[in-house]
Amino acid sequence: MILLAIVQPVIHIWLAYFPPGTIHLAVVDPGVGTDRKIIAGRYNDQTVVAPDNGLVSFVDAEYPLESIASVRNRGLFLRSPVGTTFDGRDVMAPVAAALVDGAKLQQLGPPPDTYKLLDLPEVQYGGGVLVGRVLYIDRFGNCITNIRRELITQSLPALGRVEVSAGGQMIGRLLGAFAHAQEGQPLALLNSMDLVEIAVNAGNAREVLNLSVGDEVVVSYGQ
Amino acid sequence: MILLAIVQPVIHIWLAYFPPGTIHLAVVDPGVGTDRKIIAGRYNDQTVVAPDNGLVSFVDAEYPLESIASVRNRGLFLRSPVGTTFDGRDVMAPVAAALVDGAKLQQLGPPPDTYKLLDLPEVQYGGGVLVGRVLYIDRFGNCITNIRRELITQSLPALGRVEVSAGGQMIGRLLGAFAHAQEGQPLALLNSMDLVEIAVNAGNAREVLNLSVGDEVVVSYGQ
Amino acid sequence: MILLAIVQPVIHIWLAYFPPGTIHLAVVDPGVGTDRKIIAGRYNDQTVVAPDNGLVSFVDAEYPLESIASVRNRGLFLRSPVGTTFDGRDVMAPVAAALVDGAKLQQLGPPPDTYKLLDLPEVQYGGGVLVGRVLYIDRFGNCITNIRRELITQSLPALGRVEVSAGGQMIGRLLGAFAHAQEGQPLALLNSMDLVEIAVNAGNAREVLNLSVGDEVVVSYGQ
Repeated sequence: MILLAIVQPVIHIWLAYFPPGTIHLAVVDPGVGTDRKIIAGRYNDQTVVAPDNGLVSFVDAEYPLESIASVRNRGLFLRSPVGTTFDGRDVMAPVAAALVDGAKLQQLGPPPDTYKLLDLPEVQYGGGVLVGRVLYIDRFGNCITNIRRELITQSLPALGRVEVSAGGQMIGRLLGAFAHAQEGQPLALLNSMDLVEIAVNAGNAREVLNLSVGDEVVVSYGQ
Repeated sequence: MILLAIVQPVIHIWLAYFPPGTIHLAVVDPGVGTDRKIIAGRYNDQTVVAPDNGLVSFVDAEYPLESIASVRNRGLFLRSPVGTTFDGRDVMAPVAAALVDGAKLQQLGPPPDTYKLLDLPEVQYGGGVLVGRVLYIDRFGNCITNIRRELITQSLPALGRVEVSAGGQMIGRLLGAFAHAQEGQPLALLNSMDLVEIAVNAGNAREVLNLSVGDEVVVSYGQ
Repeated sequence: MILLAIVQPVIHIWLAYFPPGTIHLAVVDPGVGTDRKIIAGRYNDQTVVAPDNGLVSFVDAEYPLESIASVRNRGLFLRSPVGTTFDGRDVMAPVAAALVDGAKLQQLGPPPDTYKLLDLPEVQYGGGVLVGRVLYIDRFGNCITNIRRELITQSLPALGRVEVSAGGQMIGRLLGAFAHAQEGQPLALLNSMDLVEIAVNAGNAREVLNLSVGDEVVVSYGQ
C-alpha cells in the first residue's frame, strides 16, 4: 500500500494515478482543536483521511462514496488525550498508518450522520459560452480553472476554434502546450489534469494578468 | 533504524516522537571548514550527529547525555582528505549511515574534552509573572517561545485565566486552538510542543505584531 | 538501483556521488508538447532520462557517451496517447521506472540521429588570467561559476595567492571556507563541487554584489 500525505484539496484527479488501496492523508486543518470531526472516506477503492471541513469535496464530486467512518477510536491515536493543535500528527497520521497496516474503516468509528462538502463553483453554460472560475493558483502563477475538457467537447463544436478569456482579458485560442505561445506571452491550455489553465510561457500568469482565485474564465466558440 | 536529517536546532521535543535507535543528522553548519569539531551524542537512546557549534543544546538541556564521541575516524568519511565546504555530505552523512549500519559510537572517535552548548535564554519567574522569549519563528510567522506548559501550571494558579503579552503588546488569554481567535486576530496558545506560541489565526504573527526572535513574552495570572 | 529525480541541469558533478546503475530522471521541460524528443543517455555506467533540450550538456561535457536511445516505445508510457503538458509524469517517469525494473536502453527506442547540446560558456585563459562566468545562483544567493579547481592549478602558480573578481568587483583571495570571511562580507571559495563560488558569509551574494547568471568572474595571480 501507498501512503500519500498531501496539503492541497485538488485530489480528485490524482486518485486516477494511484493504485487501489492507497491511503491519502490530507491535512489542511485550520479548525484543529475545535469540535470539527475527522473522517476517513473510501472512494475508487482508495481511502482519504481528512478533517471534516470540506477537504474531500473534489473527490466526492468525482467518485461515489463507497464507505465512510468518523475517526473516534482513541486506541489508534498517538496517545490519549491528544493535544489541540496538531491532529495531523496526533490523530490522522497514526490512523492512516493503522489503515496501511490493515485496519478496516469500521475499526476507526461509526459512519458520521453527515459530512461537510464545499459549495464548489459550477461551470455555467448558455448561448454557446462556458463560464467557469479560477480554482487554484500554483507556485509558478499558473491559474487552474474548473473547466474540464469533456465539458468543452460536449458543449462546443470543436476544441480547435475555442477562445478563452480570463478576468475580462482575452487570452486567445486554447493551445496544446506552453511552448506554443511566445515566451512571456499569456496562453490558455488544457493542462495535465484536463482542466483549462491560464498560464504565461516561462512566466507568471497571476502577476502578468493580475488574476485571483475566483476570477471568471470564459470559453466560447471562436469566429 | 530511522535516519532523520534536519535543519533546525529545536529537536528536543522531536526525540519523544522517534523510536530508540533513531539517528538524527543535523547540519546547520556555518563554521564548516574551520577547526570546529563534529560530534555524535547519544540522548534518550537516540544519536545526534552534528557540528560542535551548540546545535545539540536544546536536546542536551532536556535529556541526560548518555555517551558522546568526537568524529575523527577518517575511515568512515566519504574520502580522505575531505573538502572544506560540505562536511554534511563528506563526513556527517557517511558517519550517520555507518551508525545506521551498526557502527558503535566508540568507533567514531574518542569523547571530546568539551562540547559547545549555547547560552539558552531561561524563563524568569517573579511576582506571579513568567518572562520568556521568542525562540524561533516558523515559515508561517508563528512565534514559538521557551515557555512550557508545565512551567505555567507549576507557577500560576490555573491555565484558564492566564494572560499573555508579546513585544509589549497584550495578546490575551491562552487559547486552546488557532480557530478560537477570529481570522486575522492574534492569539496565544499552547502549541503542539507544549510551548507558548504567539500566532494569528490564518495569518502571520511576525508581520502583524512585528515580532522578532528574542522578543519578550510575558505570561501572568489574569484579573 | 537508485532513481533520482532532479530539477537542475548541473548534474555532471553529482554523478560521481551515485553508484553504477543509478537512473537520473531530469525534468526541466519548457518545450513539453512540442516535437522535441525525449532521450535516455548512459554516462559513467548511469542513465539520464531527459528531454532533448540540452539538459544533458554538462554531463556530456564531462563523461563519454556510452549509449543513447530516443524514447519512443509507447508500450512503456503511462498510457497512449499521452497528454501534451506533462511528459515528466506520462512518459519520462514510467520509462525511468522501467529502466529501474531492468529494461535495456535499446527497448526504449533507436538511437537519435543527433541530440542537443548547449553552447556552454568556456573559461578563457590568457596573460595569467582566467575569465569564467556565473553559471547558476542557488537559493541562498551563492553564485556558482564554471571555473574549476584543476583549471586554476594547471594555469596559475599557486592557489594560495589567487585573487578573484566578479562583475567587475574585487572579491579577494580564494578562501577555504565561508567562515574565513567576516559575517556579511563577500568571499570567493572553491565549493563542494570544486568550482569557484562567490558568496557572502551568512548572507546573499546575489543581492550584496548585484550579480546575475552570465556575469564575468576573473581569477588572476595576486601580487
